[in-house]
Amino acid sequence: MAARSLRRSNPITLFLALILFLGFLIFLLSPGSGSASSSSPPKVQKPGLRRPVTHYKMNNVNTTKDPVGNRERVLILTPLARFYPEYWANLLKLSFPRELVELGFIVPKTREGNAALKQLEDAVRKVQSGPKKGRFHGVTIMRQDFDTPTPQNEKDRHALAAQKLRRAAMARARNSLVFTTIGTETSWVLWLDSDIVETPATLIQDLAAHDKAVIVPNCFQRYVENGAPAIRPYDFNSWHDSPKALEMAAKMGNDDVIFEGYREMATYRTLMAYERVEGADPNAETPLEGVGGTALLVKAEVHRDGAMFPPFAFYNLIETEGFAKMARRLGYQPYGLPNYLVYHYNE
Amino acid sequence: MAARSLRRSNPITLFLALILFLGFLIFLLSPGSGSASSSSPPKVQKPGLRRPVTHYKMNNVNTTKDPVGNRERVLILTPLARFYPEYWANLLKLSFPRELVELGFIVPKTREGNAALKQLEDAVRKVQSGPKKGRFHGVTIMRQDFDTPTPQNEKDRHALAAQKLRRAAMARARNSLVFTTIGTETSWVLWLDSDIVETPATLIQDLAAHDKAVIVPNCFQRYVENGAPAIRPYDFNSWHDSPKALEMAAKMGNDDVIFEGYREMATYRTLMAYERVEGADPNAETPLEGVGGTALLVKAEVHRDGAMFPPFAFYNLIETEGFAKMARRLGYQPYGLPNYLVYHYNE
Repeated sequence: MAARSLRRSNPITLFLALILFLGFLIFLLSPGSGSASSSSPPKVQKPGLRRPVTHYKMNNVNTTKDPVGNRERVLILTPLARFYPEYWANLLKLSFPRELVELGFIVPKTREGNAALKQLEDAVRKVQSGPKKGRFHGVTIMRQDFDTPTPQNEKDRHALAAQKLRRAAMARARNSLVFTTIGTETSWVLWLDSDIVETPATLIQDLAAHDKAVIVPNCFQRYVENGAPAIRPYDFNSWHDSPKALEMAAKMGNDDVIFEGYREMATYRTLMAYERVEGADPNAETPLEGVGGTALLVKAEVHRDGAMFPPFAFYNLIETEGFAKMARRLGYQPYGLPNYLVYHYNE
Repeated sequence: MAARSLRRSNPITLFLALILFLGFLIFLLSPGSGSASSSSPPKVQKPGLRRPVTHYKMNNVNTTKDPVGNRERVLILTPLARFYPEYWANLLKLSFPRELVELGFIVPKTREGNAALKQLEDAVRKVQSGPKKGRFHGVTIMRQDFDTPTPQNEKDRHALAAQKLRRAAMARARNSLVFTTIGTETSWVLWLDSDIVETPATLIQDLAAHDKAVIVPNCFQRYVENGAPAIRPYDFNSWHDSPKALEMAAKMGNDDVIFEGYREMATYRTLMAYERVEGADPNAETPLEGVGGTALLVKAEVHRDGAMFPPFAFYNLIETEGFAKMARRLGYQPYGLPNYLVYHYNE
């Protein structure tokens, strides 16, 4: 019966089906449909409007100890100079529901950046065209619109002299990324560097459970020692301040920056990297004055209030360490988890 | 013939029409469809994806001397404590093409804010449900998620003691507003206070034509003197620094703030407010160290790089004046136009 009437009404149904198809295509192609569709849609006035007025009551965007249960939106941000398959594999292992997760990447305009972009695009396409349940809520890929210092090898990259330039460029990249992608519905921002290759699958839930404005795990690195697997501290940017470092800063000019982890600039700060106690409580918290950004969970309101990564000397600090100072100036205390580990790539 | 086949296929066409209607309804209701549809749509991969990957090449977002000709997107941002019909009327008089303009408001959670919100909503609804050509590209209204110092009368509001608290709250509101609304396609941000009631209709074009990273007109106020209309300087936050002010800052603590325009704190800075020469070239530029925010045009890249309005003492400066310092630390020189006037409400 249905088939008969379908055959009879061929021209008009085909026409309607075509319009329907086009309608949905427009809907699907609408750039906002990915990132703007939401579990708790904002109030929209006058349904018939082509350009609606959207209301966002910021006080309704929550950050709680249970972001999964409360359907809170997480934005994972990665400045991506190289594409490590291990980074991507680890990202896909995170157990936070993907329909609540948006990804944001910023890729430098370098030859290496171009290669990384291609690999990233392939990886993203595979996931986002796969089964619906496995897709992220949205993905934004930005190209840097400013020059980055030429990529250097590991040794050069860490030379004290090159640090300021490199970290200032990284700070600008982070700022561009967060301030362009943070939306009205973002509850949390997880900074995850492209060379972080191993974290617990429950990373976001674990960090959020502490309900801190800014919280940073301890970043280690796996290596082999005498043929046996071992781990060692990697990121030295999470620290407690020292009278010595404050004294150094007091004597410095406004443009000078203190960097951590260099023999030629001993700060006597207590580094979280060395505060880990094997077998101790992974939930133990410690308040910090400096934070690293290899993995870092930030409540969106902290960034909204204006906390950014200073690309210039801010209280003689720069980038993520300057960010920690800025968060504190805004009234947010950063915390670290000395016994909760994430791992950096070892090349 | 068509009518006949339509009548015959009634059930299925009705069904298809219903789906079609629902499809379009979803499309229209999609919160992003207003703000995300664009004159230069971002490249979208895989049309069939429910959650597309959107690429934004930041280096393709331009800011030129001819933003109308080059179809550059402008975001007009207004922290709105009160709704002045004169502000709205002036906004509607701006000749910049509305399809390129997005509006963003942040309204405090106060009794006065609630009243302002209602008036704003009515005004916005009227424009956005009117003729298509007259609609703005998008409108976002945010409610502040933090407390504001209680609104005070004009005299109290300007008392030196209350300034720091008031300007810190304003800075946080500005940061929340800009960092939540700035998008991948925003070229320019025009800050326009809710008590600016008169500007040239070509305000955006005129300011953009200078091609400066940060540019501020001179904010005056109309009044009546001996029965005759007159004008006088109003905003004293646009200034050139003085050795005296720098000396004061050097002696101050990190948390102290210098405010402009108070007898009890003479800075001897040169104020742009007093640099106006009647009949002189309205396009004359002057480099500034401090800027006011009553009307202020900023290239979006400046905010993206991280320039925000410090709600804390930043080089002993706060809010828009701190923003100018931050822009300079990021390598952007602010400019002012002493002879180009906009007018503040006179209550």
